[in-house]
Amino acid sequence: MEEHYIGVDLGGTKILAGIFGADYHCLATEKNKTKPEEGYDAVCGRIVKTVRAAAESAGIDPAKASGVGIGAPGSISSDESHVLFAPNLDWREVALKADLEAQLGCPVWLGNDCNVAATGIHRLELEAKPNDMVSIFLGTGIGAGIITNGVFLTGATRAAGEVGHMVLDPNGPVCGCGTSGCFEALASRTAIFNRVKSAVNDGGELTQLMKADDPSVTRIRSGKLRRAVEAGDKLATAVLDETCFYTGLAIANLCNLLNPEVVSLGGGLIEQLHTVMLPKIRDAALGRIMPGAQQVRIMATTLGDAAGITGAAILAHDHT
Amino acid sequence: MEEHYIGVDLGGTKILAGIFGADYHCLATEKNKTKPEEGYDAVCGRIVKTVRAAAESAGIDPAKASGVGIGAPGSISSDESHVLFAPNLDWREVALKADLEAQLGCPVWLGNDCNVAATGIHRLELEAKPNDMVSIFLGTGIGAGIITNGVFLTGATRAAGEVGHMVLDPNGPVCGCGTSGCFEALASRTAIFNRVKSAVNDGGELTQLMKADDPSVTRIRSGKLRRAVEAGDKLATAVLDETCFYTGLAIANLCNLLNPEVVSLGGGLIEQLHTVMLPKIRDAALGRIMPGAQQVRIMATTLGDAAGITGAAILAHDHT
Repeated sequence: MEEHYIGVDLGGTKILAGIFGADYHCLATEKNKTKPEEGYDAVCGRIVKTVRAAAESAGIDPAKASGVGIGAPGSISSDESHVLFAPNLDWREVALKADLEAQLGCPVWLGNDCNVAATGIHRLELEAKPNDMVSIFLGTGIGAGIITNGVFLTGATRAAGEVGHMVLDPNGPVCGCGTSGCFEALASRTAIFNRVKSAVNDGGELTQLMKADDPSVTRIRSGKLRRAVEAGDKLATAVLDETCFYTGLAIANLCNLLNPEVVSLGGGLIEQLHTVMLPKIRDAALGRIMPGAQQVRIMATTLGDAAGITGAAILAHDHT
Repeated sequence: MEEHYIGVDLGGTKILAGIFGADYHCLATEKNKTKPEEGYDAVCGRIVKTVRAAAESAGIDPAKASGVGIGAPGSISSDESHVLFAPNLDWREVALKADLEAQLGCPVWLGNDCNVAATGIHRLELEAKPNDMVSIFLGTGIGAGIITNGVFLTGATRAAGEVGHMVLDPNGPVCGCGTSGCFEALASRTAIFNRVKSAVNDGGELTQLMKADDPSVTRIRSGKLRRAVEAGDKLATAVLDETCFYTGLAIANLCNLLNPEVVSLGGGLIEQLHTVMLPKIRDAALGRIMPGAQQVRIMATTLGDAAGITGAAILAHDHT
């Protein structure tokens, strides 16, 4: 009988589950909203529901799966049993492994969402299996999985890898964390939205992203941004250029500090806009990387949304 | 017979050598100018001369020492035999280990100067032997030794740890590397000198650091800066405050990325000014460190100038 591994990508907005064969071929996926405001038990219930629906599509019994891996948006205890702190879900020290095992009837393994997605990229996309690698995910927020000396960087209290809160310009906009000029406040999709909104409010600039007669817009999807840039929308292009500049700056800083072999970029913004963004990001980064570290390969992941669930299935596979 | 280890701190300006007993008690030290402009062979000759003079003071024969450790200001080959690139000495791929062994008649071990000094601090000053630690050295330039997961971070091409070239403000002054707003261009002793000079030139501000009637000043020593700050010199205080602000910003970025247990500060500026600087640096850093990483201990090394030679002696000891 073929072994199956289940990968779950738990985000602040959505839960994605995938059923994988032993060769990491994806047999089926399923998606649901997270709705963290309904509380921990309700989210666990929706994770279980999503896994069961994906398993049903693939024609397997989830209780007979070899294991379930989950990438969660927060810090994970060193025994990989608890989510210690997940601000977007408002979780503190929850026993996610035990709670899901009780409901699913098979072993469950936890990891940090960015580290798990980086595992997917490292294992399936990179032939050379670099010992030093940084995977940056640009979306509503900005996160990263960092490998140094062949091992994921977790830090003294499992709080490492917060590249989104690296200050790149102390005179920049205020970040959700309270500090000014964090990478996330300068280059996330939230930052893009805020900048477009204030440009429209200030100067009444015309843009496809936000019409003056549509004040109800509360976010800008990456696809909409791509279409605006492709149509030559000036404000969209200017804002995306700034995003690329700061992303390049962040990459240069990381290369000078960590001297990685590979920097991989992922997340919604990159999935939609990598053909436009990658040359501009490379341009901003390379001039600022010290000569000894310039061999770095800066790439966009082709796994897209699947990096998280694939990495989670690998997490389950590696533990069983 | 007691074993002896010899530690050498090779800098762009001076060579410091120390003779140590097996317990890392320092028996004697000696200092000479590096004079890198005279070329590699001449510098090797002066290293040998410095080691021999220190050994003579301690009453030992250097050829009978158990080993010599050297911290060099550049990247070191993975077999620890060559200095790959040392911009301040204008060295590329020099066989320093073999060349010194031939002249000294005992085993020689090479390391990067910042990593070697960090080794001294880690081994002799920190009881807890942290697995995750950053040692920053503030002087003419800014360098660091970084330990993650218990191992020194070297990176893919042994170029990691260049904290001095982390961009902290893209609108900041131009750095020696060509980029604008590097940590080194904002907070090194060179940056302080440049800022004082331009303030004096622009506004004719009076300062104890640089009198208008003394245009021959080409650098500001850390001791002079300390005396000016203690005497209430306004320009000196303002410039030092900026240095502390950017140092705190750099530390916050490093804590959010690496989540170290300890950040140790060393180098000439810190040796002279830690009582004034440390509270201001902590103040700038702590407000910007994410909650999960705030347990970090930010300290000034008490080893001072001896961190380099002590770490180098430890390097020799660990290899023999």
